[in-house]
Amino acid sequence: MPTPNHTPVPDYAAMLQVALAEARIGLSEGGIPIGAALFNRQGELISSGHNRRVQQNDPSIHGETDAFRRAGRQTSYRDLIMVTTLAPCWYCSGLVRQFGFRTVVVGESENFSGGIDWLRSIGVEIIDLASPDCITLLADYIRENPHIWNEDIGEPAP
Amino acid sequence: MPTPNHTPVPDYAAMLQVALAEARIGLSEGGIPIGAALFNRQGELISSGHNRRVQQNDPSIHGETDAFRRAGRQTSYRDLIMVTTLAPCWYCSGLVRQFGFRTVVVGESENFSGGIDWLRSIGVEIIDLASPDCITLLADYIRENPHIWNEDIGEPAP
Repeated sequence: MPTPNHTPVPDYAAMLQVALAEARIGLSEGGIPIGAALFNRQGELISSGHNRRVQQNDPSIHGETDAFRRAGRQTSYRDLIMVTTLAPCWYCSGLVRQFGFRTVVVGESENFSGGIDWLRSIGVEIIDLASPDCITLLADYIRENPHIWNEDIGEPAP
Repeated sequence: MPTPNHTPVPDYAAMLQVALAEARIGLSEGGIPIGAALFNRQGELISSGHNRRVQQNDPSIHGETDAFRRAGRQTSYRDLIMVTTLAPCWYCSGLVRQFGFRTVVVGESENFSGGIDWLRSIGVEIIDLASPDCITLLADYIRENPHIWNEDIGEPAP
């Protein structure tokens, strides 16, 4: 039987595992456990990163911006997939829009939904995997570190 | 005669000079001439920075994100003023929204208007100084470096 001639479906769950591993590294460093990764359409890893607010005292490094910077200079992001353990905040949603990412895989949007509805409204494909591992990892962190979490999203202290 | 009891108007033009000096430093380093600075409501400089895409091969460092990171961790941005030589792109507009800046001073929006209408629509005060110095500095750069400029805003090469 001939092999069907189709484009393979990207293995989003496997991609999320890379972002989740980054989040866990962040936690082990004493940081906020949010990770991200960029892949091409062939499923090859381009870069990965994690939130480094606590570790580097740098509020600009969210998981998504860390993965983005580590990918280096690219001429186009149209065919790259942004994978993140948590729905991107407005800052990172703006990054997605400005640089023309067309697909964003989010581990979860239960702890925080950020700008995903806005991204959907402008035609960005959002794949929400509703991962219990991602939900639990961040929910536990937020419960134990509410001030750091609120600082990370620019909210007043709880 | 008693001194009138009023809040002094911030000197936005003087603030812009700090951002413009950063833009010129960027140009002298061989980079894209866009600079930014954060001030408090008393007019005190908190931080400043400039685009470092070329210098550090880092696409995540726009003028605004550089000034933001150099301000370090802050618990609130409500009373800080973001000053930038150019209207913020979507990425930097998302930063403004997520972290709750209420006032953004832009040197110009002629070369690029980014997300300023969106920011206005959500209640952010945008003060556009339409500075000829800012317009000329960036327009000259774009004319001589169209590919780098397009890369910086995620557009296809011209």
